[in-house]
Amino acid sequence: MQNHYIVFAFLLTFLVHNSCALWPRPASVTSANDTLLLSSSFAIHSELKTTPSDLQDAITRTKGFLKTDKLGRLVVGRGTSDIPTFKSAKSLPSLTLRLSEGSTVQSIANEAVANLSERQEGYSISIPSDGTAAIITANSTLGLLRGLTTFEQLWYMAGGQTYMIGAPMEIVDEPVYHYRGFMLDTARNFYPVADIKRSLDAMSWVKLNTFYWHVVDSQSFPLEVSEFPELSIAAAYSASDVYSENDVQDIINYAAERGIDVILELDTPGHTTAIGFSHPEHIACNLASPWSDFASEPPAGQLRLASPSTVNFTVDLMQAVSSKFRSQFFSTGGDEVNTNCYTQDSETQKELNASGLTLDEALNNFLMATHDVLRSGGKNPIVKEDMVLKHNTSLPNSTIVVVWISSDDAKAVAEKGFRIIHQPSDFFYLDCGGGGWLGDDITLNSWCDPFKTWQKIYSFDPLANLTADEASLVLGGQIPLWSEQSGPENLDSIAWPRTASAAEVFWTGGTLDDPLRNLSSALPRLHDVRYRMVQRGVNAIHLQPEFCALRPGACDLDA
Amino acid sequence: MQNHYIVFAFLLTFLVHNSCALWPRPASVTSANDTLLLSSSFAIHSELKTTPSDLQDAITRTKGFLKTDKLGRLVVGRGTSDIPTFKSAKSLPSLTLRLSEGSTVQSIANEAVANLSERQEGYSISIPSDGTAAIITANSTLGLLRGLTTFEQLWYMAGGQTYMIGAPMEIVDEPVYHYRGFMLDTARNFYPVADIKRSLDAMSWVKLNTFYWHVVDSQSFPLEVSEFPELSIAAAYSASDVYSENDVQDIINYAAERGIDVILELDTPGHTTAIGFSHPEHIACNLASPWSDFASEPPAGQLRLASPSTVNFTVDLMQAVSSKFRSQFFSTGGDEVNTNCYTQDSETQKELNASGLTLDEALNNFLMATHDVLRSGGKNPIVKEDMVLKHNTSLPNSTIVVVWISSDDAKAVAEKGFRIIHQPSDFFYLDCGGGGWLGDDITLNSWCDPFKTWQKIYSFDPLANLTADEASLVLGGQIPLWSEQSGPENLDSIAWPRTASAAEVFWTGGTLDDPLRNLSSALPRLHDVRYRMVQRGVNAIHLQPEFCALRPGACDLDA
Repeated sequence: MQNHYIVFAFLLTFLVHNSCALWPRPASVTSANDTLLLSSSFAIHSELKTTPSDLQDAITRTKGFLKTDKLGRLVVGRGTSDIPTFKSAKSLPSLTLRLSEGSTVQSIANEAVANLSERQEGYSISIPSDGTAAIITANSTLGLLRGLTTFEQLWYMAGGQTYMIGAPMEIVDEPVYHYRGFMLDTARNFYPVADIKRSLDAMSWVKLNTFYWHVVDSQSFPLEVSEFPELSIAAAYSASDVYSENDVQDIINYAAERGIDVILELDTPGHTTAIGFSHPEHIACNLASPWSDFASEPPAGQLRLASPSTVNFTVDLMQAVSSKFRSQFFSTGGDEVNTNCYTQDSETQKELNASGLTLDEALNNFLMATHDVLRSGGKNPIVKEDMVLKHNTSLPNSTIVVVWISSDDAKAVAEKGFRIIHQPSDFFYLDCGGGGWLGDDITLNSWCDPFKTWQKIYSFDPLANLTADEASLVLGGQIPLWSEQSGPENLDSIAWPRTASAAEVFWTGGTLDDPLRNLSSALPRLHDVRYRMVQRGVNAIHLQPEFCALRPGACDLDA
Repeated sequence: MQNHYIVFAFLLTFLVHNSCALWPRPASVTSANDTLLLSSSFAIHSELKTTPSDLQDAITRTKGFLKTDKLGRLVVGRGTSDIPTFKSAKSLPSLTLRLSEGSTVQSIANEAVANLSERQEGYSISIPSDGTAAIITANSTLGLLRGLTTFEQLWYMAGGQTYMIGAPMEIVDEPVYHYRGFMLDTARNFYPVADIKRSLDAMSWVKLNTFYWHVVDSQSFPLEVSEFPELSIAAAYSASDVYSENDVQDIINYAAERGIDVILELDTPGHTTAIGFSHPEHIACNLASPWSDFASEPPAGQLRLASPSTVNFTVDLMQAVSSKFRSQFFSTGGDEVNTNCYTQDSETQKELNASGLTLDEALNNFLMATHDVLRSGGKNPIVKEDMVLKHNTSLPNSTIVVVWISSDDAKAVAEKGFRIIHQPSDFFYLDCGGGGWLGDDITLNSWCDPFKTWQKIYSFDPLANLTADEASLVLGGQIPLWSEQSGPENLDSIAWPRTASAAEVFWTGGTLDDPLRNLSSALPRLHDVRYRMVQRGVNAIHLQPEFCALRPGACDLDA
């Protein structure tokens, strides 16, 4: 009954005056009709015995946004019609942060990199309208951070006043999926650290908790590895287009303080030509021509997975790189292994003949070796779906599988008993629709046409076609940005606000058949988070003419 | 024979060391193999009796770019392999600007807004490699500006030195088409003046000469008109989202000083709902629902073209607005007139019944009235193709027609004897491929799918299907950015470098069958101008992984 009341209250509030433009939508919101002003002396108090410095920093950021967001409400007049209500409104003097009884105080950063099932991102917010303090309660500092993020989204500016509507308000919230990510490819084109940090900021504003870093690929190797300095020296685009080990630690810490785990992907054995710039001995079909006979895109080249020296090199590289990351997860990739490359490589054929192994058997040994060293280092290996659907491997079910080729493949992965990260190209690939990028052809469209609109992304059902048992294998999902046609210049505009669309899918779960999950009620809230991102310096694009953003429903298909 | 030599020299130079990464490609380039350093005391001298202040400003900008571009050459190593040639290279001490004998000195700004056939954009550049001065010669300050723009593109940085390769070099250049434009829609979403100025900068770097400003539309009216202040007060998105009359003059002057004419479009009688915010009496089917019965996109509303009071209002508005622009051209638009809107509008039906006119006859009278006032003010009217192909009007052949629906329609427009501006949706629309933007539908793609790649844009043939006589009617063309899903956040990334692709089409003319116009030789030069734009603060996007940009041809289809 309580649940029904909450749902009804949310719907009523939303439909009546759209006061809860929160993204992602909290699990429950009860609200009324009072306006509440933010006191000019508004303060945020932590009740924690000791407040971790990263929680203190989060408090400082929230106070900053309350001052600098200055977002006019997305209605005709941008909130000027709210001004008459200010006269009788009370002011909110302060916000108290409270840990539930029995909770132990840890830094946000530590909680952000805990194992998935141990991450506690839930929180509740109580905002009275009588001039007494608001409270955020959670079991963890990570939960308090999520609550602060929600709190920030409640406030608008009109007539020089910072205010919210819909008070008193009670929010009880937690995510449905533990894994909610954004993937960035920094190999096809390079992104300076500042761009990655700005992306981490935007991610945290919509409560994404995983930055999946596809750091190197066939085109470049922009990662400094002190044990293998030759890799980035030979194959970064330039000496300045390198993530130093200090940069990496900086990114990991910056992310963790914002509740984000950084998972690195060292894609192997394919997508590794750049390693051949310094270690040609480890690369089959190295820069072979025509590339299309040997690889899915130029340049051709794959690790010689059947060569013991290459396996050893890869194991050492995996160990060196993975040891520098705090995350309990590490991806060895495994997409688009090109069989012809190995068939044509005399070195690989010689090794296979000598050992009597098939290519898939050699691949399996390669996986066992690289995954062993990861597990020894306390990491859970992640692979691409190819490794369990296209190749005959014996990966244990503790391996996590990224479903990318098609959303239809999730079923087969689940049937094999693997846990799933959804990253389907038919729903989530941000680069689709940008046209073919090969140089000399006018007829090519992108391979995964059409463009994935926010609506398409939002329509994704994480449990489609899965049984209840299989559903328990779904960890969550992530939106990827492949960078063949992207770089710092369009990072924000290609990623936002579409990435937010997926952030809600995995925070709330559910499908478009649910009463609280539909395009028409989502769009005004998505506009809101977009406009707020722009106020904060993230160049999220307009989804519609502003005329439409100010008039919910007016630009619907049959309006 | 001379021409053959020039062509051969250009090809040889280009293929051997890609020294001429000029965009748009000059009509002729002869070059050799010397490296030339830029003297640390490099100076630009004007030989003009009096140097107009805007030419002086252009000189200052060029000197600035020579210092700040700091572009590494787009080859593996980014030009470090050029450093050994510095030792024996001479330094260029200065550049002289010279007007041809008999030329009269005018400001760039005046020459930029002259009638099309009077604009002289040709120039020649001579760069010796023996340490003597370089010279740019032209018949006009506008030509000198174009020459400076070319000169800037020759220089790279390596080892702390600014240098060019391919000296000595002779360039003789002029455009094939007089009209080369970029169209911006500032009504669906608003762009601050700074964004427009940055676009004008980028336009000038690729020698575009027309900013076609679709300033208002059905969604908003962000143009201050002092005679009709109510229009922007009622229908701008906010008081700050308005181009004041000072802003407009600022934009016109900024453009003209960069060799760019600003042509305003007041789209009529459709696309005018925003006028109804303050003048509902002039709007038929004003905000009618469902919008799709009355308009091509929300909100519905068109000027009551059959009402004398509305005609008078429109004529007065046209006069007020057009008188503030220096251009000799002004567009009254005319696309997507919705017949059903007028059929359903009782006021319009009453007027038609009273006058005994058909709708097209009333439309024709409306056009005659608005065009008369433009002509009285010395403006040549421009209309959309609908006005001559879809409606039975009696526009004189002095009217200029924008072909936008399809490139195929150019033939029909030419057959009717009208001059043509190419703006075909099937080649040039920058917004295509971004997905449908109506709120509640997950299946819609953009109406003009797919995305128009730089290759597709570059493949446009301005004279396709036209006879020689008809060809003489082609003034040029322009790339439009419609802003339903665009704003300052993605202006650069959606427009550049694709807009440069069209800039070369109309500077050089020709087709992909010409020896000097092909995708493979264009791409390295387009990469170059893109990287240079980024150095100058315009967020032009990567067309390929940098791996490909440094290795011409390596990412071609069959490489």
